[in-house]
Amino acid sequence: MGLFSLLLLLLLLLLPLLAPGAAIPRSPALRSLGRLHLPTRLTSRPTVARNYSILYFKQKVDHFGFDINKTFKQRYLIADKYWKKDGGSILFYTGNEGDIIWFCNNTGFMWDVAEELKAMLVFAEHRYYGESLPFGANSFKDSRHLNFLTSEQALADFAELIKHLKQTIPGTENQPVIALGGSYGGMLAAWFRMKYPHLVVGALAASAPIWQFEDLVPCGIFMETVTRDFKKSGPNCSESIRRSWNALNRLATTSSGLQWLSVALHLCSPLTDFHDFWMLKDWISETWVNLAMVDYPYECNFLQPLPAWPIKVVCQYFKDPNVSDQQLVQNLFQALNVYYNYSGQVKCLNISETTTSSLGSLGWSYQACTEIIMPFCTNGVDDMFEPHSWNLKELSDDCFEQWGVRPRPSWITTQYGGKNISSHRNIIFSNGELDPWSGGGVTKNITDTLVAINIPDGAHHLDLRASNPLDPKTVLLARSLEVRYMKQWIRDFYARQGKAVLNSF
Amino acid sequence: MGLFSLLLLLLLLLLPLLAPGAAIPRSPALRSLGRLHLPTRLTSRPTVARNYSILYFKQKVDHFGFDINKTFKQRYLIADKYWKKDGGSILFYTGNEGDIIWFCNNTGFMWDVAEELKAMLVFAEHRYYGESLPFGANSFKDSRHLNFLTSEQALADFAELIKHLKQTIPGTENQPVIALGGSYGGMLAAWFRMKYPHLVVGALAASAPIWQFEDLVPCGIFMETVTRDFKKSGPNCSESIRRSWNALNRLATTSSGLQWLSVALHLCSPLTDFHDFWMLKDWISETWVNLAMVDYPYECNFLQPLPAWPIKVVCQYFKDPNVSDQQLVQNLFQALNVYYNYSGQVKCLNISETTTSSLGSLGWSYQACTEIIMPFCTNGVDDMFEPHSWNLKELSDDCFEQWGVRPRPSWITTQYGGKNISSHRNIIFSNGELDPWSGGGVTKNITDTLVAINIPDGAHHLDLRASNPLDPKTVLLARSLEVRYMKQWIRDFYARQGKAVLNSF
Repeated sequence: MGLFSLLLLLLLLLLPLLAPGAAIPRSPALRSLGRLHLPTRLTSRPTVARNYSILYFKQKVDHFGFDINKTFKQRYLIADKYWKKDGGSILFYTGNEGDIIWFCNNTGFMWDVAEELKAMLVFAEHRYYGESLPFGANSFKDSRHLNFLTSEQALADFAELIKHLKQTIPGTENQPVIALGGSYGGMLAAWFRMKYPHLVVGALAASAPIWQFEDLVPCGIFMETVTRDFKKSGPNCSESIRRSWNALNRLATTSSGLQWLSVALHLCSPLTDFHDFWMLKDWISETWVNLAMVDYPYECNFLQPLPAWPIKVVCQYFKDPNVSDQQLVQNLFQALNVYYNYSGQVKCLNISETTTSSLGSLGWSYQACTEIIMPFCTNGVDDMFEPHSWNLKELSDDCFEQWGVRPRPSWITTQYGGKNISSHRNIIFSNGELDPWSGGGVTKNITDTLVAINIPDGAHHLDLRASNPLDPKTVLLARSLEVRYMKQWIRDFYARQGKAVLNSF
Repeated sequence: MGLFSLLLLLLLLLLPLLAPGAAIPRSPALRSLGRLHLPTRLTSRPTVARNYSILYFKQKVDHFGFDINKTFKQRYLIADKYWKKDGGSILFYTGNEGDIIWFCNNTGFMWDVAEELKAMLVFAEHRYYGESLPFGANSFKDSRHLNFLTSEQALADFAELIKHLKQTIPGTENQPVIALGGSYGGMLAAWFRMKYPHLVVGALAASAPIWQFEDLVPCGIFMETVTRDFKKSGPNCSESIRRSWNALNRLATTSSGLQWLSVALHLCSPLTDFHDFWMLKDWISETWVNLAMVDYPYECNFLQPLPAWPIKVVCQYFKDPNVSDQQLVQNLFQALNVYYNYSGQVKCLNISETTTSSLGSLGWSYQACTEIIMPFCTNGVDDMFEPHSWNLKELSDDCFEQWGVRPRPSWITTQYGGKNISSHRNIIFSNGELDPWSGGGVTKNITDTLVAINIPDGAHHLDLRASNPLDPKTVLLARSLEVRYMKQWIRDFYARQGKAVLNSF
């Protein structure tokens, strides 16, 4: 399940909240944007066989209180083919909002560097995702059961798991651990190093938008990056998309216009009212967002298969902005078809399509209502979208209705330091410049041990993906820098222990 | 309320747990030792008038979950007489297990250096102590209400309070904050700098036994330090005390012996059984512990007034170890009388005496059953006490019966790093070498910014107390070093901001 389907799922969840027939109905667009899911399930066929053991570790449901003594089984994966007891290391993936096996299979970088770093690979599942459900099928029942779904609890899980590994696997006890993660997992990797520096010698935080909170970055930066990707992928591309909204709006003023749109866009269910129409526009917006995140240089599966550099392919249909509204919509259909029907098998486009209603999405929607409050906005000038301001009040009310909880928009900054993180050490922040999440990421060195690696041709954590012949040189360079830093951390660790360091490091 | 009375209170609480008439009844001594209270209520008449404002800040009861949205009022004190908006600083006392006004009045050091550091003084009360009760009178009702009494929640309170101050007091927003604390408050100061380095530029952790956990230091080190203090305070002193236990044991074998002891020790209530006798021995042990902690160079109030260097006074009664059991007990009475009757007003000694059953003691007893699990033991060879091993199982069972919770003895190390803290910066660990808590403290430099200051003639956080003409030179030196480090942190802070630094720093 990807961003798009999650958003649709969220919208579905929000449906009861929308007052039909209200005088000036609010678009749910920004509401859903406020809950943008970090795309994590980038499926790709692994280029190497992934041999790992699946294990479970008993975790306390509540690390921060003593009243509830319940435990649950956290799933984790271990691959030790290249691990060396002598002078080896442990690469620890700080799992994010999804099934850990997906992350394992989509973090080829760790597999690719395992031999060079003599590393044991560990992939730890995030609580409330995959199989790691604190209350089993009841985990998402209500706010009481969801109460232990926080980044702090997840970090504490990682800490306990690392201590467990060191206590139970002979040879690991005196080895350095490095945290790695992408997207929200990258945020967790960075935060883990900040909060538990005694357990990991460093962190590689890939495409981690740790500053997409409060006013640390402008709320418009995300959609501006999306727009820039389209702008540079073909002449008139972003401008055509910017114009498409009013074309759609004009056509949607009558019921016959809605009907025409339904046919022109090959929708599976015809649009019947304004609410459907907002859904349509949200769905289109999220398609552009998705494309910006997965604008990878090679063919890649993401819900549907996509061609290499998919935005370029999309932009072929947006070369001429000066066309009639109808023509623009027909071009829009062709563009959407690249994303939803690259295989050519799809008969119609389903804007309310939801893929499996996985628990993972429920979990993220809760997190996006509590801690992970990322302001987004558009103005239609610096970006190619319709203007929407950030509305915390609305989000808060929706969250309260949906989950019975209200967001704490300042908490992440209070807890993890916001921009004031210079006293930490040994964190690599990597960002792809095509990735809209880079706007909320760390893209300049903070100190000589808190470093930024920018990948001009990279989309969302491309560097964490398996090596590919079509990889741009910039990502190869990024990966080699990342390895160099990690080797340095490992060397420093063994030097502090007074141990001979092997030449290979 | 001091250590001694707390321990008695704990014993009283534990009374129902002791099976009367059991074949081999266990002494509660080690049980209570395992819950040694950090003495905090060292009363002394302030040498300067303390002018502060009493304020309250609305805190969330649960920072780490979103289900419970309740708030409570945290009390804090502010003194800004010497604070300068221009180039000033904020000294933030991370309140420990007691009424914040006591800490305010007993941390004269902060008052003494306020002018030099142009500092605003803030004293933040720890939740569940003083007036800062999350559920009012119900706060200690059961484990559900006590669930939010943890060091992590307390640190989060401090973080939120600092953010609040910076947002609401013009001039503070761009000023450096330094955390200070003594004893458990010193642990909190150090941990706060470790976990929230974006909020405080450094910490002065006075007499903070952050390593009195798990096996980070030998469990016997505490009582060995107590013993050393007595050993060096008079010839045969510790040896006499070591012998006193068997003298007591021999006398207690008969009921007439118990009666004789009751008279010889001027007990208010005669000893009637073995249980009373264990209580007596615990009470005596805790008296020696207390004396070691408050072995200050000047007259000082602690429950009862004490003379300067009280152990020396006590040891005058223990010069000759080769006396009869009866004589030794009579000497023992004289020694105890120094502690309990320096004023000469006390008619009898009350071994079950408890001072006000303040809520603070309840809170600490809970903390000592959950996170703050400090192993203590004695062997009677390296110390002057009867041998007792550390028994976690027993503690755990007692805690479960008392509070319905079980200790997590490894959690503090997992959370705060144990001995592996070298990646942090700007923490001063000060310890008095007379203080038994110094054994669990950091007494050697870890790096050039994680520094130890040892005070050979100091008892429990003497350096935080107000300047006194009888202060030993070593504590004067310690304080001047502490000020020098703090000034450096303040200078560095302003330098990072690119601001001109005033000459005075």
